Amino acid sequence: MASYKAPTQDILFVLNDILKIDELTAIERFADASPDIVAGVVEEAAKVIEEEIAPLNHKGDEIGCKYADGEVDVPPGYVEAYKLFQEGGWIGLANEPDFGGQGLPFVLSKVVGEMVCGANVAFELYIGLTQDCYEAIMANGSDEQKQTYCHKLATGEWTGTMCMTEPQAGSDVGAVKAKAIPQEDGSYAIEGGKIFITSGEHRMADNIIHFVLARLPDSPPGVKGLSTFVVPKYLVNEDGSLGERNAVKAVSIEEKMGMHGSVTCTMAFDGAKGWLVGKPNQGIQNMFVMMNLARIMVGFQGLGLCELATQNAINYARERVQGKAYNGSNLIVEHPDVRRTLMHMKAITEGGRVLAYEISKYLDLATHHADEAVREEAQDWVELLTPIHKAFLTDSGVELASMAIQVYGGHGYISEHGIEQIARDAKICCLYEGTNGIQAMDLARRKLLMHNGRLPQRFFDAVNTAIEGADADLAWLIGPLAKAVGELKATTDWIQNSFNNDPNDAGAGAADYLRGFALTLLGYNWLRTVQAVAGRDDDFARAKRATAKFFAQRLLPEVQGRCEMARAGSEDFMSLSAAAL
Amino acid sequence: MASYKAPTQDILFVLNDILKIDELTAIERFADASPDIVAGVVEEAAKVIEEEIAPLNHKGDEIGCKYADGEVDVPPGYVEAYKLFQEGGWIGLANEPDFGGQGLPFVLSKVVGEMVCGANVAFELYIGLTQDCYEAIMANGSDEQKQTYCHKLATGEWTGTMCMTEPQAGSDVGAVKAKAIPQEDGSYAIEGGKIFITSGEHRMADNIIHFVLARLPDSPPGVKGLSTFVVPKYLVNEDGSLGERNAVKAVSIEEKMGMHGSVTCTMAFDGAKGWLVGKPNQGIQNMFVMMNLARIMVGFQGLGLCELATQNAINYARERVQGKAYNGSNLIVEHPDVRRTLMHMKAITEGGRVLAYEISKYLDLATHHADEAVREEAQDWVELLTPIHKAFLTDSGVELASMAIQVYGGHGYISEHGIEQIARDAKICCLYEGTNGIQAMDLARRKLLMHNGRLPQRFFDAVNTAIEGADADLAWLIGPLAKAVGELKATTDWIQNSFNNDPNDAGAGAADYLRGFALTLLGYNWLRTVQAVAGRDDDFARAKRATAKFFAQRLLPEVQGRCEMARAGSEDFMSLSAAAL
Repeated sequence: MASYKAPTQDILFVLNDILKIDELTAIERFADASPDIVAGVVEEAAKVIEEEIAPLNHKGDEIGCKYADGEVDVPPGYVEAYKLFQEGGWIGLANEPDFGGQGLPFVLSKVVGEMVCGANVAFELYIGLTQDCYEAIMANGSDEQKQTYCHKLATGEWTGTMCMTEPQAGSDVGAVKAKAIPQEDGSYAIEGGKIFITSGEHRMADNIIHFVLARLPDSPPGVKGLSTFVVPKYLVNEDGSLGERNAVKAVSIEEKMGMHGSVTCTMAFDGAKGWLVGKPNQGIQNMFVMMNLARIMVGFQGLGLCELATQNAINYARERVQGKAYNGSNLIVEHPDVRRTLMHMKAITEGGRVLAYEISKYLDLATHHADEAVREEAQDWVELLTPIHKAFLTDSGVELASMAIQVYGGHGYISEHGIEQIARDAKICCLYEGTNGIQAMDLARRKLLMHNGRLPQRFFDAVNTAIEGADADLAWLIGPLAKAVGELKATTDWIQNSFNNDPNDAGAGAADYLRGFALTLLGYNWLRTVQAVAGRDDDFARAKRATAKFFAQRLLPEVQGRCEMARAGSEDFMSLSAAAL
Repeated sequence: MASYKAPTQDILFVLNDILKIDELTAIERFADASPDIVAGVVEEAAKVIEEEIAPLNHKGDEIGCKYADGEVDVPPGYVEAYKLFQEGGWIGLANEPDFGGQGLPFVLSKVVGEMVCGANVAFELYIGLTQDCYEAIMANGSDEQKQTYCHKLATGEWTGTMCMTEPQAGSDVGAVKAKAIPQEDGSYAIEGGKIFITSGEHRMADNIIHFVLARLPDSPPGVKGLSTFVVPKYLVNEDGSLGERNAVKAVSIEEKMGMHGSVTCTMAFDGAKGWLVGKPNQGIQNMFVMMNLARIMVGFQGLGLCELATQNAINYARERVQGKAYNGSNLIVEHPDVRRTLMHMKAITEGGRVLAYEISKYLDLATHHADEAVREEAQDWVELLTPIHKAFLTDSGVELASMAIQVYGGHGYISEHGIEQIARDAKICCLYEGTNGIQAMDLARRKLLMHNGRLPQRFFDAVNTAIEGADADLAWLIGPLAKAVGELKATTDWIQNSFNNDPNDAGAGAADYLRGFALTLLGYNWLRTVQAVAGRDDDFARAKRATAKFFAQRLLPEVQGRCEMARAGSEDFMSLSAAAL
């Protein structure tokens, strides 16, 4: 049976030794977030997650959620574990103290998020979207809306949803048809159907706050005519107590490939009472506050699943007796193809952890640093890294789950081992909050061009500085990394220029470009990793160096091919008629 | 809902125009297998498969197999469809006419196999292993054994199994413990447990013939002490009628990631009556007759699933309205990232089809050609291509299923569309009949070294001849192909020589090497494909050329990276202690 042990040693290494997270204490809000406090939070959270949340993962998959007459039962144990986690104050870790949060750095709440995702990713969905809903109301809601909803969302007493998708409006958000009809009391009657609504209905929390994309009367067509509304399951009385049931309900739930512990609802809004959040027709901007955070959250889901797959594969390989390796051992961990697989998994997971934590640290800087220039730079990094983090870590979740199954052999295919569940759970992460194809477009068609190409240039400046400053004895890593950086730079230029010719070229090259970028970025992360263990000769440091070398020799070489593919152009196959495919 | 339409146009194109299958008519046994007959078989089979077998695929996944008291119920409709297919004479298409078969080329029976796999891969398992069991008894059984079992296996009135795996003996076949105790009547009492036995119990056929690996008393340890036995579910009387129930039964069935329509049994042999097949302690060789055929079969499962994923993704993309493409269309097939995905899927599926059919044609030549030199060469190709065919096409099944889900977006994750099922079904193909890691070892550690490296040299000679003979206007394909061939040759030499240094190097590089080899081989297949449509300007030919160009620009560049990875050596990470991972 798959089990989860929080990788606290690596977590604290990345936070402290690579990302120097104590720099955040220079920001007044985070003055208390000393290394001791950080370590305490990580270790305490690890304990409750390992003991209370991880054990529910497999049963949650087996039993799933049950729907009857508009009500949903979550899997056994979920309600109790959620209550325990929520009452422990783990949900609003990074939220405003004035609204029931703990005021700690965002990065710390995401570290806890990674652990929850590794332990039980379906369970995490009840928490993650609640946080995103909180942020969306905090960003654009009225004071009254904040007072009414945000305290309870921060503490997790209520949960949140994101109601965007309709059958005809998936990636094409502008096709949303749900209507918001103004009422005399200043509220709106929301009419329409939404699909794929995560946590749309359940009995884990006292109330569910829906953040809904809908269209005002006479609004312009497309995305410019969308507005956002807050629609509670139960109306909230002025004293904060719960009032009558609103006219929004789940009409069915989906059977899915995985994530069975998370309920996915088709919702009917039948004149449900809602309130406009922010300005009319600014819905897409408002929704993107939530969406950008959701994309970061989903990347952490990918990371958590990478960790789960990797640690289980390593543990299994260390114990499974089969055949005889060249060194005489009968354990499969000593077979070279198995060992290669495990090293690959480690290289992606640990390098990916640096990426995920760094984007989170940048979000803290972008939001709270006193210096505008620092905030601007940090925001550039957040913008640049979001699509890479989301797409690469979720693709990696699927790939590493598949690798873990291979390490288990036929046993990996059998449900009771809990390994195939990782692959089934992981796949949704490549789809929701913008498919990974959409992420690639976001990178190639938006992020490369913003501010005259300033975003990717920040990366090239940083990595080139690191390469120039690196010790000569790191040539085994610097060489392949510099080569990858050169290819990536040329490809970046090519894509930026391609808009002068055929815009399909960038779209057709985007996915390969994103992957090439991600691998180069991880090369940079591995450089900083080996620098952070310089001079150490313990097992941890030795493993880091061996994994960095593996990355240099067996993952960086992919970059050149990816860049060639990204620059291949598209005319030949775009000009083919769809009927001829 | 996923649907299946047999790709008969491409099937006949590959058979006739690329592989010149009519050359087989020069073999007396196949004199009647004219292009007309071949086309008739393909089209008739397509009809029955589309109409009778494909519609059971999704329900079979949903409902699965049920076990109670040693008995197994297969999903609704399976018994009837199997009977119809079996009575139509489709199962023993390539078997000996003297034993109830049709005597047609093996390649033709595999073409039908591909279609069954595309329509319903779980259903195919009942057929495929039956065929392999037939061949194993034909190869090493006594005349009496052949008479007793092979007629009924060829017609499919009885089905077959392959009983190898035990909990401690998966990839390490030599660890098998099941015992065979000689009895006074010349039979053996088989004692022991087997796991993961496909089709081990069901009521689709009147009898089930188990081909069992077990150990005679006082046999040497390891693989050299294994023997094979035929163990029928019902003993067969001298007149061919069924006698008493043998002491072999299913004690449980597995819950699996997918392949729910196929039953996977834990079998108990409790003194079951069995008969030695072939000589004592030659079991591993006998089992490999079956295993090699099973590997070819499994590659076809991968191919069938590639086709299923590809055609559904294309059809969905042609109809799904979402956003606006640069050419003004609102269909996602015109979006460059979607189009790129579809082209990738086509390039792998159609190039893979040439590989799969060619190995099958070579098997016909190796078995039946009058000229020994032709047989020898054909056998070399079969040996070389088997691990590539098995591993690459099954890895591709998983990858293309994942791509199809991406094309469907969130809908791809929902069970009712039947797309996520493809990914779940596909994964087992990477595991059974030798994991894909074992296939890579077979290629790098056995096939490259056999006959002083003659096997890979045959490929290099063939592809270099094709490159030299190609028209200059194919430079867009010849250039990238020649580059890939050069890298692959250098890597082949490196791996062959690596055994003089560290044998772990070949093992650690094997998987990347296999993939690099497969892509180069598909490049060769795409060269022959465009040559076969030279001068044509219809939609089919245009699509072939565009897909070949896509392959040259966006898949062949992967070869160089793979080859670098394969040559990277292993000492750094093999020397790391397992505890430090």
